[in-house]
Amino acid sequence: MEFVTGVKEKETLELHELMAKDLAGNTVKVNGAIHAIRDMGNVAFIILRKREGLVQCVSDEEITNFFLKDLKEADTVEVTGILINSEKAPGGIEIRISAVRILSEPAEPLPLAIGKWKLSTSLEAKLNYRPIALRNLRERARFKLQEGLVRGFRDFLYGEGFTEIHTPKIGAKSAEGGANVFKLDYFHRPAILQQSPQFYKQMMVGVYDRVFETAPVFRAEKHNTKRHLNEYTSLDFEMGYIDGFEEIMAMETGFLQYTMKLLKQDYGTELKLLDVELPQTDRIPAVRFDEIKRLVSEKYGRRIKNPFDLEPEEESLISRYAKEEWDADFVFVTHYPSKKRPFYAMDDPEDTAFTLSFDLLFRGMEITTGGQRIHDYRRLLEKMEARGMTGEGMEQYLSAFKHGMPPHGGLGIGLERLTMKLMEEDNVRETTLFPRDLSRLEP
Amino acid sequence: MEFVTGVKEKETLELHELMAKDLAGNTVKVNGAIHAIRDMGNVAFIILRKREGLVQCVSDEEITNFFLKDLKEADTVEVTGILINSEKAPGGIEIRISAVRILSEPAEPLPLAIGKWKLSTSLEAKLNYRPIALRNLRERARFKLQEGLVRGFRDFLYGEGFTEIHTPKIGAKSAEGGANVFKLDYFHRPAILQQSPQFYKQMMVGVYDRVFETAPVFRAEKHNTKRHLNEYTSLDFEMGYIDGFEEIMAMETGFLQYTMKLLKQDYGTELKLLDVELPQTDRIPAVRFDEIKRLVSEKYGRRIKNPFDLEPEEESLISRYAKEEWDADFVFVTHYPSKKRPFYAMDDPEDTAFTLSFDLLFRGMEITTGGQRIHDYRRLLEKMEARGMTGEGMEQYLSAFKHGMPPHGGLGIGLERLTMKLMEEDNVRETTLFPRDLSRLEP
Repeated sequence: MEFVTGVKEKETLELHELMAKDLAGNTVKVNGAIHAIRDMGNVAFIILRKREGLVQCVSDEEITNFFLKDLKEADTVEVTGILINSEKAPGGIEIRISAVRILSEPAEPLPLAIGKWKLSTSLEAKLNYRPIALRNLRERARFKLQEGLVRGFRDFLYGEGFTEIHTPKIGAKSAEGGANVFKLDYFHRPAILQQSPQFYKQMMVGVYDRVFETAPVFRAEKHNTKRHLNEYTSLDFEMGYIDGFEEIMAMETGFLQYTMKLLKQDYGTELKLLDVELPQTDRIPAVRFDEIKRLVSEKYGRRIKNPFDLEPEEESLISRYAKEEWDADFVFVTHYPSKKRPFYAMDDPEDTAFTLSFDLLFRGMEITTGGQRIHDYRRLLEKMEARGMTGEGMEQYLSAFKHGMPPHGGLGIGLERLTMKLMEEDNVRETTLFPRDLSRLEP
Repeated sequence: MEFVTGVKEKETLELHELMAKDLAGNTVKVNGAIHAIRDMGNVAFIILRKREGLVQCVSDEEITNFFLKDLKEADTVEVTGILINSEKAPGGIEIRISAVRILSEPAEPLPLAIGKWKLSTSLEAKLNYRPIALRNLRERARFKLQEGLVRGFRDFLYGEGFTEIHTPKIGAKSAEGGANVFKLDYFHRPAILQQSPQFYKQMMVGVYDRVFETAPVFRAEKHNTKRHLNEYTSLDFEMGYIDGFEEIMAMETGFLQYTMKLLKQDYGTELKLLDVELPQTDRIPAVRFDEIKRLVSEKYGRRIKNPFDLEPEEESLISRYAKEEWDADFVFVTHYPSKKRPFYAMDDPEDTAFTLSFDLLFRGMEITTGGQRIHDYRRLLEKMEARGMTGEGMEQYLSAFKHGMPPHGGLGIGLERLTMKLMEEDNVRETTLFPRDLSRLEP
């Protein structure tokens, strides 16, 4: 028997330790994967890939006691050497190798030139070689930034008094309904995968007032587009005691402000690697659905085809309009038509053809749907009845309303879309770690 | 068009604001759900439930301009009144009501006496009325503590250089294999729900060195016990460049130390409500599987029936032994037999019948399985071959190894079990927000 007492400091140093302390002239140890080898004859550069970036190690014939020929790309190694300051090296430091210990070796050479600045390969190839392609610095930086977005969401909401919840993904009945539901056999009973945590987060508003969840959702949509996924990460929150749906938009704006600051502060390396320009978030225009449709139609001479929904091209024009007229990267489109919103959406008492709801568009694409929900039990039943819904299988959801719910509302943000638009990519698969679409179930 | 500029301060105050500022004598506004009404004739107490706790509001006939008969339990209201300090009131404050505005009303009285200290009802009834039962202060406190466990996990790992990832739950092939897999139809192709993010987190070690995920996993096990769920939240991490599997145990110990401190600091209200005694984490004994089996068998006179696995009763005795001999709430059991571990587990080079792996037991129950993994491509293929595995459908996973992986290992922690043992509950459903088991698909 031995006691485990907690994390021990490692002998090997990470990049921030090498750069922070003045270690010049000292012997240090670092580990990493060999990202590239540049053999210049009498001197060779061995570039290590570590989680925080690259470390340049230099070997010249006189001081190294190993043979360069034994090393190759994708080996993982532990290098011992003297740290020196070097303006030319990445991060301003360089390690003069005195010894190299090989920790592991690949069985075959890499199928992609991951050491290059840009992976010059198709999206299809990148996805087929996903675990390898992601070793490219710029590819992996995307998902580090994605981490920042989720962190920002959670930390901001903790600060605003929200409670994090974990709701089941397998269920008997879907909140959103419709045909786009994955079905499975649950011990000989029919079950579904949840399209959203909608019912659960609403029920939990009655418990904690304010709740959020960051978890996968599943949509069996047969769309094969650049913006659809069949499984994605949804950032959801729901808040009670609101004075109006504007409070939900204000909370989302607060999240975006907080998170862009966080990215600037803690994810500078990745922002620079990807040349990301952070969007404006200090003021986000909110404009009515029917009004912006009209404005866009007038300004760009585009006929309104569908008065009840936004087509992708219209979303793009609305964002263009917001940029040109209000210098805005984001724009809230409010008061969506009631017939295009789910039963639980609260209609506008001033005109029940519209709802107290919104979408948030970011650089031409919808990334959020949100709004106020009906909180009164009888009104909820009425609206369900008007839509021909029976409430079967929704007894528990309805019971929360039967026994009292505060006025409330919330939203869901598609994480991969938010990431995609942040880095101005044109395909959501570029910012999905392992995408699931009509044809892709692997890796 | 209007601009949304971020979160605005609310006129209504939260409990910590009421208690922190010296507002005595001032008029304040608070909202909340009516948790209980105590009518004493010439004075009535209206107890509001807010996310941070209860607020006592007092009405006496002279100063109130509303009628008590209009109020009932589960109304949500906004109360205006004068704050006074009162030693007898919860939190030391009380609000002398001057006005009450009703925000919403229930359609029917509550089916459970949620205002009571302890819900005197069966687990079955609590689960059937889940959204209502959770409004009880002690019921909801459990899941607030659960939030703290997840927060602690993430914050600790961020600090240790881990990257958070989001991996797909629908896949073509399961990492753990076996029969306990939920199957679904994915656009006319067979698919499964992942039993763990094992393959993905390993692949991502080649990208970020250290990764973690907090997400649902799915197990189609037909066990109907107090410790099994068919869907649960798994806290997973995987770390590269390890010197041995002991480093994984050290990281888990670090997580537990960090998190117990966090609970003490930020979740004092809930710890007190539930009378939780935080476990010892400064040193956790680690003892070999065969050794602890022998020790327990000797001390408690129990014959070893199955030399390759631990039965629930044995887990319980091991924890008893650890408590009695080492004053420990946690105990690592190391070097599990190879035949009971998955193909990717690294065998102990000193005796390949055992693995460099461990379980962590907490107060009598396994809450973690972890260990070092095989990182060498050829050794991985050899072990798969020895087990009669073909590698079909695992090409992408294997490619990560083919192209170089550092020595690494990791673990998975069952969140609901960790919560259960923390509060010394005897059924994991007590600490699962909406449990999924053989018979339960709702709510």
